Amino acid sequence: MRYELYYWTGIQGRGEYIRLALEDAGADYIDVAREKGDDVMMPFLRGKQPGLRPFAPPFLKAGRLLIAQTAEILMYLAPRHGLVGASETAQWQAHQLQLTISDFVVEIHDTHHPIAASLYYEDQRAAARKRSQDFRENRIPKYLGYFEDLLGKQRGAHILGRHTYVDLSLFQLMSGLDYAFPNAMRRSKYPRLRAVQQRVAERPRIAAYLASEQRVPFNESGIFRHYLALDDPR
Amino acid sequence: MRYELYYWTGIQGRGEYIRLALEDAGADYIDVAREKGDDVMMPFLRGKQPGLRPFAPPFLKAGRLLIAQTAEILMYLAPRHGLVGASETAQWQAHQLQLTISDFVVEIHDTHHPIAASLYYEDQRAAARKRSQDFRENRIPKYLGYFEDLLGKQRGAHILGRHTYVDLSLFQLMSGLDYAFPNAMRRSKYPRLRAVQQRVAERPRIAAYLASEQRVPFNESGIFRHYLALDDPR
Repeated sequence: MRYELYYWTGIQGRGEYIRLALEDAGADYIDVAREKGDDVMMPFLRGKQPGLRPFAPPFLKAGRLLIAQTAEILMYLAPRHGLVGASETAQWQAHQLQLTISDFVVEIHDTHHPIAASLYYEDQRAAARKRSQDFRENRIPKYLGYFEDLLGKQRGAHILGRHTYVDLSLFQLMSGLDYAFPNAMRRSKYPRLRAVQQRVAERPRIAAYLASEQRVPFNESGIFRHYLALDDPR
Repeated sequence: MRYELYYWTGIQGRGEYIRLALEDAGADYIDVAREKGDDVMMPFLRGKQPGLRPFAPPFLKAGRLLIAQTAEILMYLAPRHGLVGASETAQWQAHQLQLTISDFVVEIHDTHHPIAASLYYEDQRAAARKRSQDFRENRIPKYLGYFEDLLGKQRGAHILGRHTYVDLSLFQLMSGLDYAFPNAMRRSKYPRLRAVQQRVAERPRIAAYLASEQRVPFNESGIFRHYLALDDPR
């Protein structure tokens, strides 16, 4: 089956977690908005297409099934492409971790948009600076410390004891945080997360994808944004 | 099977979505921290219990399975207790909507904590006022308008065409917003969501639960908080 992925062009955003899974699996998919433009998503977002209207991208068409929400799409794809263990417990555990990653992604976004997504960063810079300080001092250690601790209970660089889509998402998290908060991340020590990040980057299909033009560079329209004022000084 | 639900005492919080499902289903469960105190959760949160360490409450023990994240727990419980349709599509759709509700709940929380969960509301009041204004003007209409629109495609007060746990969560959302933003909510018109809210409140087990001492009143430690400064004037 050829999947149809729908997500905003121009940013990695939440769509990237799904792209990494599809790429790593070697799955057949079209990144529809990249080929036809963002407008192709509008009939779906307005409920003019069959299936349950998504609240927002990303959404995926798999045959007649239309599903949305990053973590749900990953949960759907993973057992079909060997990206999670076969047991129900393994699938609940992976989803639980992915939902925790989703929570973290909201917090990452809100470092530069603490007041309103409808306002520019420049219009909420003072609040962004305060939120980012708390984020660097409290939230990064809390989330990454949690994943690092779980990795300590496993052999090898796999958070669930074998390669899963959660590892792909951890790669994306670490890469994005390195981009957005280079000073804070340079000072932090998460050797097991670094091992996951490196292992994932070296997987042949992921390495090829990252080197291709398909991988949109991180930029200041996305979720991970590099603003000097929001990182540690120096 | 007797489920064990773990959640902070003293607030409804995210645990309430699960309580409503368990109560509505007439399921056998213990609200463990209510009986033994919040400290009973610490060994789980520190990874000293079998199973995957949860990042935060709520979490649920179902036999030997330990799962966390509100939407995941509901997805697990629902097909076992008739709170979702039997088809895979129905279950993906319900989960998709519940994840959208989870996103909204984060935004509701952040109206009073836009800078940091580690700070008091009083220390972020100016930012809270700005975020709440945007929330009332843009985010409430966007989310509730979405659910209202979906309800318009169904007969009767069921967002997925039959009673599901998503309806229970919509009841909780509307009730919490009524508590936190009474002026803004009095002005808004969501007749189909109001019909869901009323239908759910009248379900016998839910009505009995809401009238019992088990239902913690909304309060200013929870997610839905009533601060005059954050609501519409008058």
